[in-house]
Amino acid sequence: MKLANLRVDGTALVAVVDTDKAVFWPVSALVSEFDGDMVQLVQFFVKFKGDLRPRGEGRPLSEATVLAPIDQPRRNIFCVGKNYHEHAAEFQNSGFDSSAKDGEHAPEAPVVFTKPASTVIGPGVKIPRHVDVTSQLDYEAELGVVIGKAGRGIKKADAMDYVFGYTVINDFTARDLQKLHRQWFIGKSLDGFCPMGPYLVTADEVDGQNIDVKCWVNGELRQNSNTKQLIFDIPTLIETLSAGIELQPGDVIATGTPAGVGIGFNPPKFLQKGDVIRIEIENVGVLENEVGE
Amino acid sequence: MKLANLRVDGTALVAVVDTDKAVFWPVSALVSEFDGDMVQLVQFFVKFKGDLRPRGEGRPLSEATVLAPIDQPRRNIFCVGKNYHEHAAEFQNSGFDSSAKDGEHAPEAPVVFTKPASTVIGPGVKIPRHVDVTSQLDYEAELGVVIGKAGRGIKKADAMDYVFGYTVINDFTARDLQKLHRQWFIGKSLDGFCPMGPYLVTADEVDGQNIDVKCWVNGELRQNSNTKQLIFDIPTLIETLSAGIELQPGDVIATGTPAGVGIGFNPPKFLQKGDVIRIEIENVGVLENEVGE
Repeated sequence: MKLANLRVDGTALVAVVDTDKAVFWPVSALVSEFDGDMVQLVQFFVKFKGDLRPRGEGRPLSEATVLAPIDQPRRNIFCVGKNYHEHAAEFQNSGFDSSAKDGEHAPEAPVVFTKPASTVIGPGVKIPRHVDVTSQLDYEAELGVVIGKAGRGIKKADAMDYVFGYTVINDFTARDLQKLHRQWFIGKSLDGFCPMGPYLVTADEVDGQNIDVKCWVNGELRQNSNTKQLIFDIPTLIETLSAGIELQPGDVIATGTPAGVGIGFNPPKFLQKGDVIRIEIENVGVLENEVGE
Repeated sequence: MKLANLRVDGTALVAVVDTDKAVFWPVSALVSEFDGDMVQLVQFFVKFKGDLRPRGEGRPLSEATVLAPIDQPRRNIFCVGKNYHEHAAEFQNSGFDSSAKDGEHAPEAPVVFTKPASTVIGPGVKIPRHVDVTSQLDYEAELGVVIGKAGRGIKKADAMDYVFGYTVINDFTARDLQKLHRQWFIGKSLDGFCPMGPYLVTADEVDGQNIDVKCWVNGELRQNSNTKQLIFDIPTLIETLSAGIELQPGDVIATGTPAGVGIGFNPPKFLQKGDVIRIEIENVGVLENEVGE
């Protein structure tokens, strides 16, 4: 099932989407007692699931603006750094990694930082350039994992049961700030630095552990990998995070980016105003955003 | 004015507190239209301020449990690392700093990471040891700054106008995890790792830029400094954070810890079950927590 957060006639609503027919059904029209946002839908999904079967022809998606599927996460997004071997090497070699050990190519354990909710923007929304504070903008195509139920001490073998679904994330980054401030939070967290969407696709439709992740800048293919190449796979990330932090429904984990980001080139290819970043994740969706003012 | 988040007869409420007389007045009894939590009180404080004058004798604090003043922050707490010179040096020398440049004693710019809301616990609550994942528990006494109004691009000269008030924070840390995961988030973010309180003291009562910060472990004075010694002072932190991230009412900034943490000793003095950490910040309050099970 594909779920979307839509704005229709000025009002936000969550909906079930059929992308082939380009139509949607508001969840509140299928489940009369539901009046929440996407995080609440995730939380109570088991209760409502049976009623979420589309009824009737649906309304045309062309009448709606697609927002980020989880545009108001309840806490910062969990982000994983250096989680593909070739990217870990390109980042290490770039000189921009302020927390690398000499000669270290892959981290010993997941490298986790966060982005606040204020970074989240939807598909098609222009990414603010923040010219006052950065001149080194970079993209990072990532599979976003959305947690479906609360859990602590989750073991790898059980971890996939906690995955509600997937979305596409651009872990946008100011490389100069990421380097300057040593801890990556500021360079990763400027307002608008987390394009997300378009859909939240339930886990039964996608094998998140074996899907292609691709990214183009102005039509040029820059990133091209598969989540099979993750250093720390999704079960390991969930086990590691939940060991001391109880995960909650609606939590978002950005799983890391493959090789091919701007600082992977020599000289680095930083983004400029008007550049278009297109991220496609197999069976999950296509997220496109332009660098704005 | 001292504000507190209290549990009285099983119900949480925000209150004005007179610590000398050990009494409180529920805000909802002073302002009939108020029915929110502390973040909402901060947000609408200007509107309600005139009515917050205590009326009558108040109720005895002994009838209430004091909770963390902001026990449900709307996004992760902003935390500043290595922000006192002597602590930056002790941390660098300890070998636990996974993001230090060789020979660097003070950072070039504020080092910022986050702790999620799930870390927040109140005064007197036992701090969970998380023995499954860590054996290197450490304390960090810090002044917490609470933001009073929204702002982006705030300049140093105006920054103190955005400070609503202050509280006491223990930026509790698992040093082994802080080191292992390179980025500090996981080591700082285990459930219960942010004791906070007891009060939120409005900025008119405290000179946050010149107050003593002290910490005792089992009665032994370990940390003893003053916020004058901050490498990046409060206006600089607010200017830096707000340059690209719009600050919001209720945002909490933990400003960094002085020298004297457990890893500052050789060999390190890690905390054990039953150890009591007492943090006193001049005119702000005393926060005491024991290391629990």
